[in-house]
Amino acid sequence: MNNSSYIFVPIIVGLLAVAFAAYLANYVLRKDTGTPAMQKVADAIFKGAMAFLYRQYRTIAMLAILAGILVGVVLFLLGQGNAQCNQFCLAWHTSIAFWIGAACSALSGYIGMYVAVKSNSRTASAATRSLGEALMVSLRGGAVSGFLVVALSLLGVSLVFTIYGGLSNPALAPSLIVGFGFGASFVALFAQLGGGIYTKAADVGADLVGKVEAGIPEDDPRNPAVIADLVGDNVGDCAGRGADLFESTAAENIGAMILGVALYLATKNIGWILFPLVVRAFGLIASALGLLWIRPSVVIEPDKAAGRDPGEIAMNQLNIGYFITCGFSIIGVFLGSYLLLTGIKAQFLPAWVWFGLAGLTGILLSVAFVYITQYYTAGTWRPVREIAAATLTGPATTIITGVAVGFECVALPVLAISVALALSYFFGSRVTGLGAHGVISVGGIFGTAVATMGMLMSCAYILAMDTFGPITDNAGGITEMGGGAESVRDITDALDGVGNTTKALTKGYGIGSAALAAFLLFSAYLDVLYTLEHNNASVYSVDLADIPVFIGALIGITLIFFFSSLAIRAVGAAAKRMIEEVRRQFRENPKIMAENPADRVDPDYARCVDISTRGALRAMILPGVVAVLTPIAVGIILGPQAEAGLLMVGTMGGIVMATFLNNGGGAWDNAKKYIEAGYLRVNKEGEMIGRLDTSGTVLGKKSEAHKAGVIGDTVGDPFKDTAGPSLHVLIKLLSTITLVLAPLYVYVNTIFPHP
Amino acid sequence: MNNSSYIFVPIIVGLLAVAFAAYLANYVLRKDTGTPAMQKVADAIFKGAMAFLYRQYRTIAMLAILAGILVGVVLFLLGQGNAQCNQFCLAWHTSIAFWIGAACSALSGYIGMYVAVKSNSRTASAATRSLGEALMVSLRGGAVSGFLVVALSLLGVSLVFTIYGGLSNPALAPSLIVGFGFGASFVALFAQLGGGIYTKAADVGADLVGKVEAGIPEDDPRNPAVIADLVGDNVGDCAGRGADLFESTAAENIGAMILGVALYLATKNIGWILFPLVVRAFGLIASALGLLWIRPSVVIEPDKAAGRDPGEIAMNQLNIGYFITCGFSIIGVFLGSYLLLTGIKAQFLPAWVWFGLAGLTGILLSVAFVYITQYYTAGTWRPVREIAAATLTGPATTIITGVAVGFECVALPVLAISVALALSYFFGSRVTGLGAHGVISVGGIFGTAVATMGMLMSCAYILAMDTFGPITDNAGGITEMGGGAESVRDITDALDGVGNTTKALTKGYGIGSAALAAFLLFSAYLDVLYTLEHNNASVYSVDLADIPVFIGALIGITLIFFFSSLAIRAVGAAAKRMIEEVRRQFRENPKIMAENPADRVDPDYARCVDISTRGALRAMILPGVVAVLTPIAVGIILGPQAEAGLLMVGTMGGIVMATFLNNGGGAWDNAKKYIEAGYLRVNKEGEMIGRLDTSGTVLGKKSEAHKAGVIGDTVGDPFKDTAGPSLHVLIKLLSTITLVLAPLYVYVNTIFPHP
Repeated sequence: MNNSSYIFVPIIVGLLAVAFAAYLANYVLRKDTGTPAMQKVADAIFKGAMAFLYRQYRTIAMLAILAGILVGVVLFLLGQGNAQCNQFCLAWHTSIAFWIGAACSALSGYIGMYVAVKSNSRTASAATRSLGEALMVSLRGGAVSGFLVVALSLLGVSLVFTIYGGLSNPALAPSLIVGFGFGASFVALFAQLGGGIYTKAADVGADLVGKVEAGIPEDDPRNPAVIADLVGDNVGDCAGRGADLFESTAAENIGAMILGVALYLATKNIGWILFPLVVRAFGLIASALGLLWIRPSVVIEPDKAAGRDPGEIAMNQLNIGYFITCGFSIIGVFLGSYLLLTGIKAQFLPAWVWFGLAGLTGILLSVAFVYITQYYTAGTWRPVREIAAATLTGPATTIITGVAVGFECVALPVLAISVALALSYFFGSRVTGLGAHGVISVGGIFGTAVATMGMLMSCAYILAMDTFGPITDNAGGITEMGGGAESVRDITDALDGVGNTTKALTKGYGIGSAALAAFLLFSAYLDVLYTLEHNNASVYSVDLADIPVFIGALIGITLIFFFSSLAIRAVGAAAKRMIEEVRRQFRENPKIMAENPADRVDPDYARCVDISTRGALRAMILPGVVAVLTPIAVGIILGPQAEAGLLMVGTMGGIVMATFLNNGGGAWDNAKKYIEAGYLRVNKEGEMIGRLDTSGTVLGKKSEAHKAGVIGDTVGDPFKDTAGPSLHVLIKLLSTITLVLAPLYVYVNTIFPHP
Repeated sequence: MNNSSYIFVPIIVGLLAVAFAAYLANYVLRKDTGTPAMQKVADAIFKGAMAFLYRQYRTIAMLAILAGILVGVVLFLLGQGNAQCNQFCLAWHTSIAFWIGAACSALSGYIGMYVAVKSNSRTASAATRSLGEALMVSLRGGAVSGFLVVALSLLGVSLVFTIYGGLSNPALAPSLIVGFGFGASFVALFAQLGGGIYTKAADVGADLVGKVEAGIPEDDPRNPAVIADLVGDNVGDCAGRGADLFESTAAENIGAMILGVALYLATKNIGWILFPLVVRAFGLIASALGLLWIRPSVVIEPDKAAGRDPGEIAMNQLNIGYFITCGFSIIGVFLGSYLLLTGIKAQFLPAWVWFGLAGLTGILLSVAFVYITQYYTAGTWRPVREIAAATLTGPATTIITGVAVGFECVALPVLAISVALALSYFFGSRVTGLGAHGVISVGGIFGTAVATMGMLMSCAYILAMDTFGPITDNAGGITEMGGGAESVRDITDALDGVGNTTKALTKGYGIGSAALAAFLLFSAYLDVLYTLEHNNASVYSVDLADIPVFIGALIGITLIFFFSSLAIRAVGAAAKRMIEEVRRQFRENPKIMAENPADRVDPDYARCVDISTRGALRAMILPGVVAVLTPIAVGIILGPQAEAGLLMVGTMGGIVMATFLNNGGGAWDNAKKYIEAGYLRVNKEGEMIGRLDTSGTVLGKKSEAHKAGVIGDTVGDPFKDTAGPSLHVLIKLLSTITLVLAPLYVYVNTIFPHP
């Protein structure tokens, strides 16, 4: 079979994945939606979330239309056409791809949120019957989003590639479709920023005034910000993360295809370019198999007396499904290499084995990240317990310890990434027939690309687990507000706890794949420069000893800090308004908190929803614009090599900073949960003892330690849910923006060469 | 005159500076030491500080002896000797230089602290008479330390250079004396870590339990941790900062001399090597002139009714003195260039003018840093007021806003550094007769070295202002504890406030000079590699597209985060013990807080001092060892170019992170002071209004906002006084360790070349 026909694999598998998602959606939507009280809450959440998304997308659409036009104009005026495609051709292809990418990215966010919002009351209702059913509904609800997002990314890239003539002119098409990745990143950045600001402004407001000042439980209907908080879980976690992972997979896929061009030119085998698409298609199949393994018959019902904790049961099943996905992925990556990566010599073993090993490395890295993230954010290990102990001496030591844990937790992931990068490069560089650019082995770089594709194979499964998080979180809220029974709350609380872990895992996975992809994306950029600068091999050196590169690198890391500042500040500002509003409602309407439930009136939920919406939309613009304009300014003023320095060191800084923000925030959150679960026990001297040591006194909710824990959690909220995830998108955006606008930097630098 | 004889300039000026310091010390020590109550407190501080320093130095001495031996052994076994100096010669010269540097660094710390401790009660006593006298005593007390430290660094480098045959064999000697810089950094790292942990553990303990829980004022004698807190100001700020700036000046000076070697070889003019020493000698003279300008006759006495605020008067005088120093420095750097930098062609203007302009750039950068730091840490501008406003909504928003301000404040300094670096490189590269290494102009790099030397010229003056900080802080404490009058406290409080600003300025200055020096130190390392690898010009490229360099760079930035974690965690752990101890004393001995002052008993100060001492000594080891071993491991495993990547990106990360930690911490501190000064006013809706708008209500001490402000300040304490300053030392240590151990990396890499 001619390797060109492998293009049908991603297209067919992508369509099958859409059908699979429809099957899952049907499964979920057929479930009953619970009591009228539950439905009322679910309806309020649905309306709030849709209203926000509508207004947000209107703003983003205007920005995206403008950006797409600007990109087209720049490429038309300054780009370099060639015989196959002149400047005008380059410009309109890129602009159209940009808009398609932007639209798909927005659609991914929308789908993720829609299904999640529809699943939450159904999960709450299912929890009244059994853990198994609740787990099925919430996970499959999440999987609808997971499979649709990945299928959309796969179909989008495959179809645009094909339509742009990729099969007849494989060397040209990948650089025409980089616009797709840029459009996806562009929308994802604003979606993640806006959603992240929304969710945390609401959460901080609800927690600080409701839990700490008024002393009412989480998700209590008396809290005016409670609906905004529940809406936030959806617009931030579902819509934001959907767009984020969509652009990650798209950008990394396109980067890998650009690298494949060099290998295609050497081998005349289009398989090198199609490989990323085919392997990701195999990954979709592996994810579906892993997901289907989780079925009611394998879920034991909980029985606390017999030591069968519902959270542990659910987490175990999710883990088994993940390992099944990884197992099939390993088969898939070797198979893909065997079928497609042919026509080249290698040392000792056939080339496909070396590349298969590189893919295996990526898959193992994803497993390593799962364990490292659990160590740093789950209550059973040292880091979270350390923070819990620090709450005994007040909020200041809680914060100090949490920052220390956050700064510490970057070390293991970076070591894991370093090893994976070195190994996959080493495996790839055993394929010696591909030559080298300067010190860089072409096979080695492709090895890191294969590892990245290997890691991304389980993306749909991971995304299903991620969206599972906000669904169960909402289900818990709906149960609480709808007055569900204690035994039901046990199930939803346990699933919510599992959801926290899976959300943290997804972030770790996202940052791990971004780190692994960083190298391939730089290399793709250098490949583009090589072509633009008429095969000048010196572009492959990004020399830090060169002053413009050094300054670009310094600005890159500064951008990470500055962008984080803007994202965090946005939450602080929006949260402040929310706190004032909640306090005002409690003050001006004492009936909200009336002693006798019969005398109570509902607070004004809609006003809180509105404050979050307006705050988020206003606040997302500045950080987004800074993120887009800084790399452009550096590229123009300091030139394309300095831009590479910004890209590389900015990415490194982003990886480290995002890990700090995500894990630090997650650890604070779980330290608070540790206290709420009644695990914080002290002896007579007030020192913390073992969580199961019954000789001590439990310091639970409403203790001073708990108040300190809530403050820590609140500080961590914008870290882990706004700034951290936005950084994921930022570092991918840096890559795509650089890839798309490379002609601009080269042009300006040719006209005004550096002294 | 033969340029060799210019070596007498630094030696003579250095000796004169020692004499000048003796004159200043005599001036201070002749002053009276205050009332018996003041003397009692001062005596307790002196004993506590000396006891800590003695124990700390014993530990550091053992580590330094061991490290010096190891360095010698490594160089003896693996180093490359040459005709002038074989391996054994190289080894013992380096080890001896290491120990001399270590001893001088320790001595600098000791002197700084000794004089400061002796000046505090004298300042308190002088404040009972006049502002002018109090300012003179505290500033001159600080200047003793400032001039001795800089003189010691200048004399140390000059003498070791001369003794090691620098005048007869100028090309060899600079690389023999790098051990001096490494020794200095090594001691400074542990001194700064130990002192920083000590001071903050005590401060956090004293503040949280004393101010927040027991509601007693700062420096109240009833607080068991108060003496430990006052001791901490000395061992952290004086001893630590003295050692820090000693090693900064030494390392940067030696780096510049190494760069001078290439120029000496091109011109046979030893002036290029001696230039850094001569210019710094001129800087000492300029600093003395600036300092002498501040005399009693120019200080107007304060009169609050007439709007003559004591703080403003003092800050104005310090600023005028600083501008005088800068003015003379500009003359000095042009004069030095004119006298020494000869024998080479340049474009348009003589070479000395270009290098003079580079020096001017460095001096202007130091002025820019002064203003930027003030903007971010002084209460009159937006950042601090933003944090103060956030205290109204509690500790969580206080922390979130402070982190946002801290992340933001890296942007302006980095832009200033980037411009200065580009300009000084541009000026230097106009001197075209020097050739280039690859893309790097030799003249351009020397331009950045001249800029660094220009910036360092005012070092003695800056250090005097810095040590002035803890002296006035202690004087305030002694006045408070000795029961001084209100009018006296007005003066000491105002000087204490000025001291906070000058301490922040010094940190900004330190990090700015480190950033500017970074490039020269990398280049010196590449020069060393060039020689070691037998004039292989490819070492001048540090290519981020090369996998080992990329991984080294990633590890470099991770090291910054991990090290910060260890430093902050150390404070958290020690502070926790201190909080428990203070709580225990209040609980077990209620007489400490007796209503009637006559019934009160003194708390057990000594036990708190002891807890801080033991905590600090134990906690400084791990971060110090990690900082030393990581670069060595990377150099051995990944090779010399990856080591350069670690060095460069680690330095960038260190610059950005230290700026975040220093300014974020300073802003929290001053937001708290803003509230304490009665500037936080709110309207009826509880929103912050202008600080002088009398229509609002003042929220002062003991308000909820103030409690939140204290928590912010406490969180910032380990940031700005432990982790931040330790990072200054760390980035210099990375440079010196790399310079000294370069032969090791080259050797291992030759034996086991990378795949």
